[in-house]
Amino acid sequence: MTTISLIPQPLIYPDFHKFGNIISVAGARQAAGEPLLINRGNCERYSDIAGLDIADAATGISLFNAKHSSLPITVDYLERHPLGSQAFIPMNSHPFLVIVADDLNGVPESPKAFLTDGEQGVNIRRNTWHGVLTVLHPEGGLFSVVDYVGALPNLQEHRLQQPLIITMDDSC
Amino acid sequence: MTTISLIPQPLIYPDFHKFGNIISVAGARQAAGEPLLINRGNCERYSDIAGLDIADAATGISLFNAKHSSLPITVDYLERHPLGSQAFIPMNSHPFLVIVADDLNGVPESPKAFLTDGEQGVNIRRNTWHGVLTVLHPEGGLFSVVDYVGALPNLQEHRLQQPLIITMDDSC
Repeated sequence: MTTISLIPQPLIYPDFHKFGNIISVAGARQAAGEPLLINRGNCERYSDIAGLDIADAATGISLFNAKHSSLPITVDYLERHPLGSQAFIPMNSHPFLVIVADDLNGVPESPKAFLTDGEQGVNIRRNTWHGVLTVLHPEGGLFSVVDYVGALPNLQEHRLQQPLIITMDDSC
Repeated sequence: MTTISLIPQPLIYPDFHKFGNIISVAGARQAAGEPLLINRGNCERYSDIAGLDIADAATGISLFNAKHSSLPITVDYLERHPLGSQAFIPMNSHPFLVIVADDLNGVPESPKAFLTDGEQGVNIRRNTWHGVLTVLHPEGGLFSVVDYVGALPNLQEHRLQQPLIITMDDSC
């Protein structure tokens, strides 16, 4: 079986934008500009920076408590969610992999891997192919996830003909 | 002017529940029980644990970057949001104060102060009186906030006749 090797890239705009939004101060500054000062000047608010897009007003917050993974990682399936975007907000500053792909007639195409910097979350767009939550820190990671929590089926999986091998170059 | 002194209590159920939901693994276990195992067993999902309640499907994620505050703190106004609950998800494990109060005919009554443990977020219920985000860590704190992001007015403030003085007892 052939495979595709990927080295994760830093998670930055504009590279990531067609797949989703970056939830970070730097990302918000790039996408939305200067913040609003609230609470009598004690707090910066970067408003509505994630591009939430969830069906039927069935939006909820869930907790994902993920075990860690060690490189190299083999990714043999991707998934997507037709009923809504899916935001991953890290609660303990641990970097995680964001594996995404284009869609070509219902099949994932041109996969890419990004690595967050610990301060970044992401909101993956509705119906965008992505790998499951993958945390490299030995302790794993805790995330608040904002996604569809209604009763309709919302998971499509695609087994990859060419599994992805995620490796790291020396500079990371 | 008279004041009311409050010592923050640990943020636990059932004490906090009439004001909102606790966003933490321990809180989720108390409120929702055992998690779902997803991603081939590598991740626990505690689903829909925050009790989101936001008008008009105008739900968004914003970033709040808050300066720190030092005790004792004087709180001379509280606020509430008629169009939605407001969730604060800490992104860098810094404890923060959650100041809440009952409502009596449109006036805050019986204020309480809670202190999170660093791993906890909260979702404050729609129309519940609360103090502004208050972070005690010298670096301040970064939060993802899930709340109403529509165009209608959503802020009511009430100046307190008796300001609150938040202090800490020796054991904290």
